[in-house]
Formats: sequence, C-alpha cells, structure tokens
Amino acid sequence: MPGLRGLFIPGPTNVPDRIRRAMDIPMEDQRAPDLPAFTLPLLEDVKKVFKSRTGQAFLFPSSGTGGWEAALTNTLSPGDKVLAARFGQFSHLWIDMCIRLGLEVDVIDVPWGEGVPVDVFAARLKADRHHKIKAVLVTHNETATGVTSDVGAVRKALDDAQHSALLFADGVSSIASIDFRMEDWHVDIAVSGSQKGFMLPAGLAILCVSPKALAAAASAQSRRCYFDFADMARANKDGYFPYTPPVHMFRGLRASIDLLFEEGLDHVFARHHRLAEGVRKAVAAWGLALCASEPRWQSDTVSAIFLPEGFDSNAFVRHAYKAYGLSLGVGLSKVAGRVFRIGHLGDLNELMVLTALSGVELTLRDQGVPFEAGSGVAAAIEHFHRTQPTRLAEAA
Amino acid sequence: MPGLRGLFIPGPTNVPDRIRRAMDIPMEDQRAPDLPAFTLPLLEDVKKVFKSRTGQAFLFPSSGTGGWEAALTNTLSPGDKVLAARFGQFSHLWIDMCIRLGLEVDVIDVPWGEGVPVDVFAARLKADRHHKIKAVLVTHNETATGVTSDVGAVRKALDDAQHSALLFADGVSSIASIDFRMEDWHVDIAVSGSQKGFMLPAGLAILCVSPKALAAAASAQSRRCYFDFADMARANKDGYFPYTPPVHMFRGLRASIDLLFEEGLDHVFARHHRLAEGVRKAVAAWGLALCASEPRWQSDTVSAIFLPEGFDSNAFVRHAYKAYGLSLGVGLSKVAGRVFRIGHLGDLNELMVLTALSGVELTLRDQGVPFEAGSGVAAAIEHFHRTQPTRLAEAA
Amino acid sequence: MPGLRGLFIPGPTNVPDRIRRAMDIPMEDQRAPDLPAFTLPLLEDVKKVFKSRTGQAFLFPSSGTGGWEAALTNTLSPGDKVLAARFGQFSHLWIDMCIRLGLEVDVIDVPWGEGVPVDVFAARLKADRHHKIKAVLVTHNETATGVTSDVGAVRKALDDAQHSALLFADGVSSIASIDFRMEDWHVDIAVSGSQKGFMLPAGLAILCVSPKALAAAASAQSRRCYFDFADMARANKDGYFPYTPPVHMFRGLRASIDLLFEEGLDHVFARHHRLAEGVRKAVAAWGLALCASEPRWQSDTVSAIFLPEGFDSNAFVRHAYKAYGLSLGVGLSKVAGRVFRIGHLGDLNELMVLTALSGVELTLRDQGVPFEAGSGVAAAIEHFHRTQPTRLAEAA
Amino acid sequence: MPGLRGLFIPGPTNVPDRIRRAMDIPMEDQRAPDLPAFTLPLLEDVKKVFKSRTGQAFLFPSSGTGGWEAALTNTLSPGDKVLAARFGQFSHLWIDMCIRLGLEVDVIDVPWGEGVPVDVFAARLKADRHHKIKAVLVTHNETATGVTSDVGAVRKALDDAQHSALLFADGVSSIASIDFRMEDWHVDIAVSGSQKGFMLPAGLAILCVSPKALAAAASAQSRRCYFDFADMARANKDGYFPYTPPVHMFRGLRASIDLLFEEGLDHVFARHHRLAEGVRKAVAAWGLALCASEPRWQSDTVSAIFLPEGFDSNAFVRHAYKAYGLSLGVGLSKVAGRVFRIGHLGDLNELMVLTALSGVELTLRDQGVPFEAGSGVAAAIEHFHRTQPTRLAEAA
Repeated sequence: MPGLRGLFIPGPTNVPDRIRRAMDIPMEDQRAPDLPAFTLPLLEDVKKVFKSRTGQAFLFPSSGTGGWEAALTNTLSPGDKVLAARFGQFSHLWIDMCIRLGLEVDVIDVPWGEGVPVDVFAARLKADRHHKIKAVLVTHNETATGVTSDVGAVRKALDDAQHSALLFADGVSSIASIDFRMEDWHVDIAVSGSQKGFMLPAGLAILCVSPKALAAAASAQSRRCYFDFADMARANKDGYFPYTPPVHMFRGLRASIDLLFEEGLDHVFARHHRLAEGVRKAVAAWGLALCASEPRWQSDTVSAIFLPEGFDSNAFVRHAYKAYGLSLGVGLSKVAGRVFRIGHLGDLNELMVLTALSGVELTLRDQGVPFEAGSGVAAAIEHFHRTQPTRLAEAA
Repeated sequence: MPGLRGLFIPGPTNVPDRIRRAMDIPMEDQRAPDLPAFTLPLLEDVKKVFKSRTGQAFLFPSSGTGGWEAALTNTLSPGDKVLAARFGQFSHLWIDMCIRLGLEVDVIDVPWGEGVPVDVFAARLKADRHHKIKAVLVTHNETATGVTSDVGAVRKALDDAQHSALLFADGVSSIASIDFRMEDWHVDIAVSGSQKGFMLPAGLAILCVSPKALAAAASAQSRRCYFDFADMARANKDGYFPYTPPVHMFRGLRASIDLLFEEGLDHVFARHHRLAEGVRKAVAAWGLALCASEPRWQSDTVSAIFLPEGFDSNAFVRHAYKAYGLSLGVGLSKVAGRVFRIGHLGDLNELMVLTALSGVELTLRDQGVPFEAGSGVAAAIEHFHRTQPTRLAEAA
Repeated sequence: MPGLRGLFIPGPTNVPDRIRRAMDIPMEDQRAPDLPAFTLPLLEDVKKVFKSRTGQAFLFPSSGTGGWEAALTNTLSPGDKVLAARFGQFSHLWIDMCIRLGLEVDVIDVPWGEGVPVDVFAARLKADRHHKIKAVLVTHNETATGVTSDVGAVRKALDDAQHSALLFADGVSSIASIDFRMEDWHVDIAVSGSQKGFMLPAGLAILCVSPKALAAAASAQSRRCYFDFADMARANKDGYFPYTPPVHMFRGLRASIDLLFEEGLDHVFARHHRLAEGVRKAVAAWGLALCASEPRWQSDTVSAIFLPEGFDSNAFVRHAYKAYGLSLGVGLSKVAGRVFRIGHLGDLNELMVLTALSGVELTLRDQGVPFEAGSGVAAAIEHFHRTQPTRLAEAA
Repeated sequence: MPGLRGLFIPGPTNVPDRIRRAMDIPMEDQRAPDLPAFTLPLLEDVKKVFKSRTGQAFLFPSSGTGGWEAALTNTLSPGDKVLAARFGQFSHLWIDMCIRLGLEVDVIDVPWGEGVPVDVFAARLKADRHHKIKAVLVTHNETATGVTSDVGAVRKALDDAQHSALLFADGVSSIASIDFRMEDWHVDIAVSGSQKGFMLPAGLAILCVSPKALAAAASAQSRRCYFDFADMARANKDGYFPYTPPVHMFRGLRASIDLLFEEGLDHVFARHHRLAEGVRKAVAAWGLALCASEPRWQSDTVSAIFLPEGFDSNAFVRHAYKAYGLSLGVGLSKVAGRVFRIGHLGDLNELMVLTALSGVELTLRDQGVPFEAGSGVAAAIEHFHRTQPTRLAEAA
C-alpha cells in the first residue's frame, strides 16, 4: 500500500525520526568503561519525567506488564491484601495478575467509562483499621475506555485515613503525556512503558519507586529474580545492569527525554490536552458518544468512541486498516464491537489529529454510519484555530 | 515541533521507508566485480518506467536541471534552432538555458495556466520547410502552474509535418506518476529527476534517450564533458560509470522501481488521478480556482490554486509551515504571491491527501480566507468513498 | 574516536546492516489483521533454528535471564529438586536463580575451564530412584570460560537411567552458532537470547519448549504471570501476543532467520568452527593458554584467554577499549583479572577475526606482554588460507 | 557473505554512523523559511575546511568531475591556455577534460610515481612573458599513484614569475585529510568531493573559489548553465539553491564538518599521517614497493603498491573482494595489473588499518606472493605502539 500509514492506536505510538536515528546504531559493549557516564544521568532524568525527587528509576527489558509484576513481587507477599478498582481491560488485567501472584484483591467494580471511585476507596481505607490493605492500585489512565483517574485524590484518601498502604499507579498510557506527580502525590511505585508517551518502540518497562517501596522489598516474600529491584539497583549504582541490557533502547530513551525536556513537560501536557480537545469536538460534531461518561474522566491520550447501535466497531477498525492503512484501536472485552479508539498521544500535532479525524470520517462514510462529512474536521479546525499558539503569539 | 511534518510540495516528495532503508547502507566499491549484475538490470528497468523499448537510460549525479543540459549539449550545436513554449517557471528556465548554451529559441508565449499550444507548434513545424528547427521542447508537466501538456499531440504535429526535429520532453514532475510513453510518442530525450515520482531524494537526473538522439551526438558541437552521453554509455555498457557514482542512490532507485512495478505502472497512474481528483473536488468546494485554466490542462501531480484577491500566498505558505509543519509550494515568478501549490505525487494515499486538505483548511481559517471549513475534506471524502477500490471490490 | 569500533565481546554481537534496516521501521499496530501472516511463520521458523519439530517457540520481551526464569517457573514448583553443574559465571547465576525461586539444587562444582561432568550427572540420575530430580540444567556454552558441554551425552545419561527429569539447556551463546539439536537430544526447554547468534540487539528471550515441558506447566506451582507459557501460547495461537510486543524486534528476527537459512545452518556452524580455530591458532602462537582446559571443551563462539602471571586482564581490556575502540570481554568472578575474552560469534568473517587478533596484538604490545608481534595473525592467516572455501572450490 | 566488509578503496570511504544517521531523514522543503539558518553557516564552515577566509564555497550536486568542469567553464574561454602535469589517471582525465572543453593545454608528462614538477612549471611560467597561460592545474593528490604534490611550491613559482594565472587544485582525495591551505597558497579554485575526506556518499562536488576566480567568471566565454557560479551564488546568498538541492547530503555534510572540527583539522591530518605511516611500514616489511618513487611524494590518503613481477594485481584485488569482502583499489591505466591500492582516508583508525593490512596479507598468502606472513601487521603494530597517543599521554 503506497503512502504513509496512520498509526492512531493508544500505543505503540509514532516514534519520532530523531529517536529512530538515536536507536539505529551499532551494538555497544554493555560493560564499557564509559557506559556509566551515559546511564547514570539517564536514570536521574527518567525520575524527572515522573516528577519524582526521592524515588529511584528502573528500566527493565520487558513490556509494561512486566512493570506491573515488578511492582507487586518486590513489595508484597503472597496473601497480602490490595485494594483496586476495575473499570476497563487494563485495570482488570492488573487485578488478575495480583490474584495469580497469590495476593488477595479487594476489587471495586465500576461501570466502564468511569474511573477510580475515590469515595469508595476512602471508605474502605478508613474501615481498614488494622491496615490489612498493603497496597492500593490505581490505573491512572485506563487505555481501554479513555478514562483518567485522580491519583492525587486517592493519596488524599490514604492520608485522611492515615493509612500506611503503598500507593501504586499504572501510568503506562499517561506518564510523559498527562501530568503525573510522583512526589506530590506520594506515589510509591509508578509503572510506565516505552511505547506510549516515551515515543519508543515497545520493550522497556520504566518504573519509579519510592524509598518506602524499596524498603518494603526487604520483607516482601514474593519470589522474584528477573524483576528484582535489589539486583537491578546494585548494578545500576555503578551505571551497569545485572543482565545484557538493550542499550540501543536507552539511547532512544535519552533522545526521548531530550525531546520532552526541550519542549518542556508542561507544554507537552498542554499540547496533549489541546489536541485531545480537538478530537472530542469532532466526536461531538459527529453526534457520537465517548465511552468516558463524564468530562472529568476524559483522557487526554486516548478516546474510546461508541459507534451507533447496529454498527460493528471491529469491522469499522478493520476497514480503516485495510482500505486506508489507518490503525485505530478496537474495543476490548466488555466494549468489544461497540467502541473504537483513537490514540492521541506521544509525538503528535494538529496535522496528525486532522489525519486521524478525516480518516475516521472517510471510514464512517464507507461504513454507512450517519454523520455529516467534514463536520468533525471543521470542529477540530475551529478549536485549533482559536487556540493556535503561533497566531496567538503574533496577535499579542 | 512535535509530530510528523506534512510534505506536500511538488518535489522532493515523501521517500517511502522501504526506499530510505535501501539507501541507508555502508558505502560500496564502485568497481566491485559484482556491481554490473546490479546496475545493468537497473538501467534496463529504468527504461520500462519511461515506456521505452529502443532507448537507452542514463543516470547522472545531478539535479533534473543537469538532465536538461545533458539533453541539449549532447545533441545540438551552438546556433541550432529549437522550438519551445513558455507557460510557467520551469518551461521558462529550460528556454533560458537554451539561450545561454548558444541555441536560438523560437519561443511561443502562452498564458500561464495553459499548456503547449499544439496547433501553433504544428503551424511552425509545417512552415519550417528546411528543417531549421533541430529540436522541439515540451514541458510535459509544468510544475509551477499544475499544467500537463499533450506530448503525443506534439509528436503527431511533427509527423504530420514530416519534420525531422528531435522531440525532447521534460518529465521531471510527470514520469512515474502520469502516463508517459517514450516509445509510442517517439520522444527522443525524456528527462526526469529522482525526487518526484521516483520518490528518492534529489541528486539524480534520470534520462532516456532514443537511438536517433544518440546518433545526433556524433555531430553535435556543443562542448560537454561531465554530461557526455558517450563517456557514460561506454562505461555503462559494462555496468560501471565514468566517475564515482552515488551507488546508494541506485540502491534506492532499485527499491523505487520495485515499488512501481509491484503496484503496476497503470495502477500508479490511476492512483495519482484519483487522488488528484480528490484535491480538485476540495478546491471547488472551497470556492477557489485552479491555475490550470481548463480541465484538459489539470495536472495529476500538482495543483496550483489561486487565493482570493487580497490574500498573499507567500504569507499563507509561510504560516502553514511555521504553525503546522505543513509544506506547500509557493507561487513562482508571474504567479508569485497569488497561488499556492499542493504537490500530490509519489508515495501518496487517501490519508495523506486528507492531511494536506485539512491542513490547508486550517491555514485558510487562520488566514481569514472565506470558505466553509470541512467542505473540502467532505468533498474529497465523498470522491474517495465513491471510488474506493477495496469497497468496490467487496461489493462486486 | 574516529573509525569503526571493534565489537568482539560474546554478546551483544555485531548486528548486520540487513537486520538493522529491517528493524528501523515505523511502529506497527500490534493488533493489525495482517500481523498473524507474519508472526505465525516466524514462530515456526524459530523452531527450525533450534532443530525442533515437536516443540513450541516462545518470544518474550526480556533478556536471556528472563528466559531462564520462564523455563523454571512454568514447569517446576517450589521445593522441587534440580541437578546442575557450576563451572562459570553463567552456570552459577542460573543455579542462584533456582535457589531464589525456591528450588532445591543439587550443585556439582567443577573446575572453571571444564564443562558438564556427564559421568557425575549419570551417577546422580541413576541413584535418584524416586525421580526426585525434576529437571537437569545444562549450560550448553559457558560464556564466562569459553566452554561447550555435551548436551547429547546428558540426554543419554537420562535415558540410560530411565529418568523422567526434564532437560533444560541454556543455549544463549550457542544456539544459531553451534550445532544444537533440540529434537535429537530430547531437550525440554532451550533458552536463547536475541543478542548472540541471532545477531539482534538485546531484548528478546527466545525459547523452544517440548510438549512434555508444556504439560508440566499444568501442575507447576511456581507463581508466574509475565513469563507464563499458557498466556503466551493462547495469544500466539492466533498470531498475537498477550501484551504489547516489540514488533520491530520480530522484523529483525525475521531478517536474522532469513540470513541463517540462506547461509544454511550447517554452514553457519562450520563457519563458526573455522573462525574459532583461527583464534585458537593465534592464541597458541602467542604462547597464551585458553581457559578451556581441554580441546573437547573449546567453544566455537567465545575464547577465554589467560594473560601471563603479573598482568591484569581488566587493565588490558580497558586499554584496548580506550586506546583503540576494541571491545573484548573481561574475566568474570573466579577468573576476573586473569582472563580476557574474544567473542567470535554471529555475523563474523575472516577479516573481522583478523581485526580482533591484530587489535589484541597491538594491546599486548602496549601492555608489555611478551609475545612475538604478528605471530597470531600469521597463524590465523595460515589456517584461513588452508581452509579457504573459494580457493578450495576453484582448485577443485 | 557474513560479516562486515572491508572498504579500503580511496573513495568512497566509510561513512561514519553519525553521518549516516544525519542523512537518514524525511525529505525537507528546499524552500522552507528556516533553511537558510542551516545552509548559510554550513557554507561558511565548508570554507574553513579548505582553510579559506576570502573565498566562497560551492556545493554542486555532481561528482568531483563536475567540480573540475565548474572550475574550468566558469573562469576560462575556449582557446585559453592552461599549464598542467600528467602523472596518473586523474591528472590525465582533468587534462583530457580541458581539451574537450576547447582549452589549449601545455602538458608536462612526468613518470607515474612522481608529482608536479615544480621546477618545470616555474620555467614555463617565467618564459610566459605575455601571460598566455590563464590557469595552472595542480592535482594535489593523485589518487591513482598515491602521490601528493606541493601546491605551495607552485604558488611560489607563480609569485616568483609574477604571473597572473589562476591556480586550480584538485583536492578531491586530499582536502579534509591532508593539510590544504587555500588562503596561504592563494589557490583560486580548489575542488573536492563528498566521498573522500568528507566521509559522505558520492554526490556532491565541493568547491572553494577565490574572489579573483569569481571575477574571472565575468569575462569567461565558456558556455555553462548547470555549473554556473553566478546562478549558484545568487541563490546561495539567501541560503537557497537554483535547483532542487540534495538537502539530506547537506545534513550529512553538517555532521561531517562537525566531526572534523570536533577532532580538530590538525589532529585529523596528524591521524592520517600516522596511519599512513603504519601502512608504509607494512609495505616495507612485506618487501614490496610503493608506486610513489620518493618519500616526499608519498600520500597520506592512498598507497599504490606494486606486486612483484608475475603477479596480476587485478586478480589479486578480485580475490580479496570475492573471498573476503575486502575492497582494495585496482591499478589504473599505465599501472593497471601491476599495482593495487589501499585507501587510508576518512573515518579511519588503527583497528581499520590493521584490518586492511591483515586482509592484504591473507590475500598475498592465497595468491602465492612470497612474503613473511604477519610481518606487515607486526611493523604497523610497532609503529602504532610507539606513537600511541593515549599511552604517550599517560606516560607523560
């Protein structure tokens, strides 16, 4: 198929050319004497993306799922109780992992389209006088439904209850795209992956771990080896790794963080919000509904969009891919066949959002979904026009 | 600036990843014993793109301008007369080169927006009983105005006049994108460049030369060395080159031709036409006018579009670039400040056209040009929907 | 530092340009409808590299260490007994992992420089009437000492004892470089990694698992999730993965396997042997000793070489790196400071071996190690000359 | 063929990875408003490589041969007389071009292996009272024979004769590798190419032109268009180009110049000399003779080496390529079949020289040339050892 393909899934995201080039290098000696001068500052800079001061960054060769496992096995023991809400496929999978690793999970089921029910969490934490709950799990951004939860509010609930539980956040599809404040929110472990806001290929779990969580590792009885924090920390201290690391991914991560810092994290977040608003204006113009049931849940990195009754979102996504090389996200599990998803995160700008929106419009037209062609693009254009930074700067 | 940039100028065009990869190689020994096994078939396949059977392909390290010079200096002598029409910046520049190389040019000036005036050419040729005209120059696709001329009709005019003049065609922005029939039209030299339909970076002039034109070289008195056909042909015969060739560009050209053949030249042309039609439907929906004054002149590789009176197309193009990373073509010379150009050639598909159109709409909105936002995108969507190959195939 | 660096560590190995190019691609949709047409044949072809017919291939985003963990946790339960020999840093680390995962290890310590003591294994297995030993671990190629063990002989010992234990082989630095016969030797799990004989960057654990080992997973009580065979097999069945896979690594793996098959596995093994022999001839000419104490232990992928008493191999390796950009392997653990290692595996040829050898000679000279300069290179040249395939073919 | 190939021809040279990455980019808009901010400093920095202050740099999309043509056609008129010496294939070809372009050449033939006969030049210039000689041509480094001539001495001869002729230097295989002093030597046009010391692929002629030569263009009657200095200068003034330039090559050139400046030009020259000395020590140890007949002619970028009588250097070079992937230069024209050439320029270090030398030794052995295997490598090692910068620095 000729021409550029459109990749608008919520990860892997488009890898900027600068990162591709940074990774396209001959292999390096992972025990070279000059490697630490590269890796030590890198690990420090990873922390800054998490807005952590006191934490420690970890890079595991694995997917984000491995990062979940690292968080759980390094800090908890079989039989430990954790508190978690389920409102999408990824919050579900993390809970499922807890169970398989022998943890006891207090699961709060919430309608898909909503986020973490902070008041319910608060109540459970208050009720847990003996601090049986050892960890609270928060899926910061549920990729399946396009819902962002309020991690800071969960921290407040813990503080209000004077509860000692660890706070874990899955920020795989939020960190580096949506504001995440590890230090302010006293998050104990935040998990991310390379293939979303970090704009890299899949292959790295990126974690930041608080001193409290590191201390918990000393008594945690879960068996672990590959994902062991202590092994990794011991080698990292000197800038090395306990097993052959994917150094080319680190070179890419360096370029990624350079890009993030050059733009400025706050500008990155603002850009994501502005572009996401463009998508949401288009969805409204099409007369379609978001899976996120209220504005406060709307994610700035991914939108899950219901097709009207009678239309199959799997067929929709398949047609976009086959006919136009446009990759959209399918609906997963409970919302399979009903929603399609537009990933709008990472290395993104107005043109790319317009590409996604006009490609969706073309697919809607082909699939016979009733809507006014051009309406979504027009709504996004109006939004981008009104908020155009260069134009506004020139006008000022 | 984050995100993909949109390159919609009429060359250089977007280089497909497969071609980029083919070129990103260690340097090669240009005298290696196994090089001819690569170069000889390549030169043969270049001919097929020109639809030539009896001609000979030439690859000069230079821009397309160098190809013009090669055509003139290898076949003509100072003082020789050539016939040419001027209707845009590129037909103008070729004529200017003729003059500087000592040729006498019979220039037919035509309003910009029209193409080669075949009837005028026919009259001149008929009137030229003594065949003083040694060559007829045709700019197949005038990149400055988005106008395609009828080379076959010029051939017919030559034949009708039983005229012996050589027929030269500038196909820099047409060959490999718009049907070009070297053999059928008895074109004597056709000139193309690497950075348009061949989807490569700039740096190669690609020519095809008829036996008649090669024979003319024997008596042509124009001084030449770098662009000498005979030197090149002598080395090419064995698969080598008279000076260090850019072999990595040849590797890219191999990938380019493979892509063209895999799609099929006729499908490539049909795709260009369908996508160009989408652009033209959008232009009409915006209420803007093409520079090409009649449908028969409309180019399938580039559209030059007039902004309404009172708007500066230079400022328009500059804003699109600075605010959105969208590269459009400016107006050149006579139409400077009045037209902007959308290049729609090479490695292109529906999504990319929609990117260009929605980016143009956003720029129109920012610049205050009156139009209905979304209208152009909607018109293109309707056109692409009605002519969607996959959907039509499934329906059949 | 100008010029090519010399990477002669036993992994990561030099990535061929063709593989680099195959990996340098835009990100792909890991749920694309056409992905299975790529991944399913890939998984089948991985098996062929292991010479397995009835097994199942697994690709985990992790280092080879993760592959060790996958092998153990999917088939064994805490408290299970395994039999293993320790004769280098990597056999040591696998044993250490067993202990940390709660297994009971019957460790046979062997002098570093020797390999698996098959007769001792045979005795233990025969003595284990109740089949308390659930798995036998064999480090096929000990990367720390340059020692290759006889997996087939271990299989024979198991068969002779009519023992039901699973047979696990660590082939990280042997598979795809040294003959490995999963099916013939009835190996139950073989573990490899991407960054050695597969000539890829680090980041993939590559396993092949027998039906017997897969069946053992049903009753294995070790907790696992990320490395769970069942999850992976369920998704792989349809050509997909249970979490975001590094598709670009799979594209590279495809190119790797294509290269291996085009050369022919047996030719790949013969090439490694011939090149390794060249290294060993040079070592002998220098008057230095291999760590591998007998010819039968000598590895065709890595040579660990003792410096004379009084010389520090760490300083030696550091100087080679800093002064000449030459990466050699250091001595690890018991042989730290005493041996340096030359990795001679993967994408390797005569010129590259001569680069390594002449670079080592230059470093020997700088470090004041007594030897005759040129002698090692001359010995390797003589060996390569006598066994030169093209010359021999022409002579025949 | 597995493994890295060895490219040791005198151009194209090995392209450093950093340059490859700089060039592996999406196409750029050659009329972008921000392009001049990149091109203007680049053109200034090119001058610094030539050690020119008052000159003007030119970048033509062509091979170095095109640069020769640009020099001649922009400054001379048909019938003009030029003085030149012929002592190798490239000095021969430039003379041949002069003749074909209508110039009258006073050719001084010199044995191949010697360089410009400054005393003969001086005599001719003194005798030319009426300054009929309009230009003196010097091939600074004759790539065919590995001979470097003394440009400064030619300048002195011109000055001594108070002669007004222009001084042109072919520095294709010297500039950026061997000290070249445009300003000090009052060179009027120096011609280089991208694929030698600049470490880029072929495709750019790189020139530096003195004000005197630019002034000569006003009255020069040679017909030119593609290579016209005035057209190029007019567009370059604003940072643009008169026809579509290969911007990716300019990006590579930027990286090339950055590399040269980071190392420091004088260090670059010293490195080339030290490495060339290593090659020459090896040649002496083998008992072979250089084509350069005296030490003062020996080139630091290429060595042409005679095989003993009875051996065919074409067969030698072919075997090295076919059997080992080692590219050496063949003998050209008068020395065809008798010499082979080692290119030792550009992105080069000790390891690479040792690769070339040991590869040559292996080929000598296969071809039955009598020599002591290892001797050349040992001689180079001894030389590199004695002059090792890091070791010397540590000792100091």
